[in-house]
Amino acid sequence: MSLFSFFQKRNTAPAARERLQILLAHERTNGEHSDLVNLLREEIIQVIARHVKVDGEKVAVKMDKGDQFSTLEVDIELPADLERKKAA
Amino acid sequence: MSLFSFFQKRNTAPAARERLQILLAHERTNGEHSDLVNLLREEIIQVIARHVKVDGEKVAVKMDKGDQFSTLEVDIELPADLERKKAA
Repeated sequence: MSLFSFFQKRNTAPAARERLQILLAHERTNGEHSDLVNLLREEIIQVIARHVKVDGEKVAVKMDKGDQFSTLEVDIELPADLERKKAA
Repeated sequence: MSLFSFFQKRNTAPAARERLQILLAHERTNGEHSDLVNLLREEIIQVIARHVKVDGEKVAVKMDKGDQFSTLEVDIELPADLERKKAA
């Protein structure tokens, strides 16, 4: 199944809005290093906030931890006019 | 379909290896701002390289641009001992 179809299936938003979705999955071979996804979460959101105006209330973060996988889903609704910031 | 199953289905690697996968999708309402995914790509990989030793040859990057979606897939095979770096 291609990535496009994964996102299109998930997109049930009535009015098409500008959105940015990040999915992060860390597949581990052993129980160690299981906080990598958590570590990356803040910094990835900061990278995005450097390029587009992000409204904290329009950012949904979901984390899951299974035996073998840790996953992070970040779903950001972008402002309609997508105010772009000059790269810092 | 949950995120776990998306990654598990895609994982055909014979021997379980430590892997980090990032999927980024930018859903646009108009043709503008279509380079956001490209802009974020380098910086997100840099964020990861700050936390784990990344072997350039073990990083697969795939970008797709449709009318409404731009997507980025980054697939990183992590070193087995997952040498962790102290955050810079």
